Amino acid sequence: MTAYAELERRFRRLSALNGALAVLNWDQSAMMPEGGAEARAEQVATLGVIVHEHLADPEVAELLASAEEGAAALDPWRRANLREMRRQQAHATALPAVLVDARARANSACEMAWRAARAENDFAALRPHLEEVLRLVREVAAAKAHAFGIDPYDALLDEYEPDGRAAEIDGIFAELRDFLPDLLGRVLERQARAPRPLSPAGPFPVERQRALGLRFMEALGFDFHHGRLDVSLHPFTGGVPDDVRITTRYSEGDFTRALMGVLHETGHALYERGLPGDWRTQPVGQSRGMALHESQSLLVEMQVCRSDAFLDFAVPEMRRIFDAGGPAWEVENIAALYRRAARSLIRVDADEVSYPLHVILRYRLERAMLAGDLAVADLPGAWNEGMERLLGIRPPDDRDGCLQDIHWPGGAFGYFPTYTLGALAAAQLYAAARERDGGIEPAIARGDFQPLLRWLRREVHGRGSSLSTDGILRQATGAPLGTEAFRRHLEQRYLI
Amino acid sequence: MTAYAELERRFRRLSALNGALAVLNWDQSAMMPEGGAEARAEQVATLGVIVHEHLADPEVAELLASAEEGAAALDPWRRANLREMRRQQAHATALPAVLVDARARANSACEMAWRAARAENDFAALRPHLEEVLRLVREVAAAKAHAFGIDPYDALLDEYEPDGRAAEIDGIFAELRDFLPDLLGRVLERQARAPRPLSPAGPFPVERQRALGLRFMEALGFDFHHGRLDVSLHPFTGGVPDDVRITTRYSEGDFTRALMGVLHETGHALYERGLPGDWRTQPVGQSRGMALHESQSLLVEMQVCRSDAFLDFAVPEMRRIFDAGGPAWEVENIAALYRRAARSLIRVDADEVSYPLHVILRYRLERAMLAGDLAVADLPGAWNEGMERLLGIRPPDDRDGCLQDIHWPGGAFGYFPTYTLGALAAAQLYAAARERDGGIEPAIARGDFQPLLRWLRREVHGRGSSLSTDGILRQATGAPLGTEAFRRHLEQRYLI
Repeated sequence: MTAYAELERRFRRLSALNGALAVLNWDQSAMMPEGGAEARAEQVATLGVIVHEHLADPEVAELLASAEEGAAALDPWRRANLREMRRQQAHATALPAVLVDARARANSACEMAWRAARAENDFAALRPHLEEVLRLVREVAAAKAHAFGIDPYDALLDEYEPDGRAAEIDGIFAELRDFLPDLLGRVLERQARAPRPLSPAGPFPVERQRALGLRFMEALGFDFHHGRLDVSLHPFTGGVPDDVRITTRYSEGDFTRALMGVLHETGHALYERGLPGDWRTQPVGQSRGMALHESQSLLVEMQVCRSDAFLDFAVPEMRRIFDAGGPAWEVENIAALYRRAARSLIRVDADEVSYPLHVILRYRLERAMLAGDLAVADLPGAWNEGMERLLGIRPPDDRDGCLQDIHWPGGAFGYFPTYTLGALAAAQLYAAARERDGGIEPAIARGDFQPLLRWLRREVHGRGSSLSTDGILRQATGAPLGTEAFRRHLEQRYLI
Repeated sequence: MTAYAELERRFRRLSALNGALAVLNWDQSAMMPEGGAEARAEQVATLGVIVHEHLADPEVAELLASAEEGAAALDPWRRANLREMRRQQAHATALPAVLVDARARANSACEMAWRAARAENDFAALRPHLEEVLRLVREVAAAKAHAFGIDPYDALLDEYEPDGRAAEIDGIFAELRDFLPDLLGRVLERQARAPRPLSPAGPFPVERQRALGLRFMEALGFDFHHGRLDVSLHPFTGGVPDDVRITTRYSEGDFTRALMGVLHETGHALYERGLPGDWRTQPVGQSRGMALHESQSLLVEMQVCRSDAFLDFAVPEMRRIFDAGGPAWEVENIAALYRRAARSLIRVDADEVSYPLHVILRYRLERAMLAGDLAVADLPGAWNEGMERLLGIRPPDDRDGCLQDIHWPGGAFGYFPTYTLGALAAAQLYAAARERDGGIEPAIARGDFQPLLRWLRREVHGRGSSLSTDGILRQATGAPLGTEAFRRHLEQRYLI
């Protein structure tokens, strides 16, 4: 067996272990009773340590070195696979096993504490857990920064967005910071002059909301032979490409929140399901990174599902399933509702105009926490001030302030910017798709998403990790990631 | 660190891995979409191999030898823990890793094939999968028989019922075979002379059936902070002691099947949940074996929940939840319904009188298959003949014949006898409990199961694997396992 073939065998085993972890994590959020938390933390931490041991095995380092010597003889996919194996191994060996274990346990414990703390608006209860998480994140960042010769924040970012760098994000975010507050102001002014859209009257029974979500998932191409829809506090996409689990949460008074959650996660799910089938068990078969992942969810949720074309198809379906009618259920009214911008408190419910400002706040705060410039104890104050400065509103409490997101309690520092990089990529990809194939949008108005899905399968999903994010975007859109398509999209949807 | 302490550390890790496997297996039956089967089989097989590698590590053999030398200095629980560690290690090292892996994969594939084959009444579709499973089971049995110096069937039985031996089962089953067909005949004659009980009229909406199940689970002491109730094709108890997952399946026309499934699995769940908390992660903290496990489910389902005392409490609850009344809902009528014996086709729906005859059939067939005296191809015929001989009826098709059980497709040979050993133990334990504490039965009539649960916690659940099955039964009932209490129970309930 060649070194490369032996590596494929070992990474196949890692793929199964990571798949098991994905199921355990989905279950923890969607199914597990609270009392199972301790046992689950033990299971997840143990599997994490075993994954780490496998990657950090000195034999893997030898096999990688040997395979890399002969890399020129490999075809491009195998060569890319080898590069991704090295990337995973480098991340793993940058950390001692004891740190991997401690991090997994602290993240699990803090996430559970967050569930209670958020429900009870009790930041003080979260604080010691979050301090421990941050302490370990800083250790992780320092170890990886040292190993890779990059900045500590970049070392964390690299876990979610391979080759992502704060210097580039700074440039992109500076452009957004330049035009977005002004653009948001103009959108709100224009909106204030128009009649206020009517709110469809509830209650909307959960079973019907679920039926509506399933109907749209099916239309969008979600494969129920290989996936499910469930409920969790914070919507997410989990599982593995052949068994994709998405979640949402329902409120009987407002069906749009659950529906938008479903549409968003369906975008993630289509990406996972469309990853190259021949490379299921190998690193090169995995999704490229969280920016591209988010681009797929936002392409579905924001670009497609708030467009006129989609609403022409979707609103009659909504009327049918909720057995409703009247002026509130006209396409124009639903469109106005779905495109309502606001200076609002909650990121996951924010409109696409103001959303990047929520991200910029979190990006600044997490960089400050990581650098040691902001203590966890001072987070609520810094959050509230930042909200005031960037969005012009102040949270009344921490529940709707710094307790709203699961990310930091779950140990995910360096993740937030990928939301906005994804929004930019979504605008750029959807513009390119419609430019290349004029049939995409008319088909959507008929409820046919196949032309769009075919383009995405070919240009994005099916590439797996064979190219970099930048490489995929350049091939698909002819340009590197920028803010231009996003800005044009906002102007066309909100100001014309 | 002493050898013993190092072993505890390693078995803690194994406990987490086995816990992860338990969640994956639960998910596979209760949640997973069909298309996830291949990926799941890979996950389960990989974890199985890793568990095996951990147990078969030569360092574990050295640590065991060293700890066993100093065993005299350990307290009784640690000494028992060491004995159970040795048992698990002996089972693991009896098999080469490649056989463990092949067995897990074949079982997974066959179990999935069984789901389709049963639905379509297509034994031919199952046959090649079951042949492969049997081939590997025979290899496993031969390897373990050689390693332990016992018979191949005993070697399989030992996986489910530690120290269980066919020679003892033969004796017990011969006693049953002696009196049971005659007793069944007398019960059926007596039953035929009484008026036929009325069937409560459905449909019974699934949501209300579920509410009824949850109500009784709660009354019986099921802890929903540490467990759930879901749906699967074949009811089972999964998860871990701090997160016990039980399932049932609903039919709108007949609420009793789902309910009895819930009560049965609740008995299993109470056992798991009651295992000694201080030993959660160690072999001595695990349930003793499947015979005792089954005794707990049958004690709840058969001994308690079909008793007059229980029905006095339960029938009014049924009337309330189904909003029903009339003669069919009188306690006497429900009692007659619940205690109806029959020559029937399906083991899981069989009454407690005829049930052991179903088990004796499977016991004979699986011993013949293992010995090479019965080919898989000849199973349907042998099954149908055996049914005719033992129960006096012949299945009209394989769906209700040899395709009805998940056990053989899942690779579980040597499991079936534990059902009947469990039924005997249940009768013996419940008789002893009522004899020791006269308050148990009157409390049940009031819906208070705490006196019974306290006795079971002390005498059975809390003992974990610190004693043998025989040891636990002798301490709790003053006698080894026999058929006498079971026979007395049947005569009292059905013939007096």
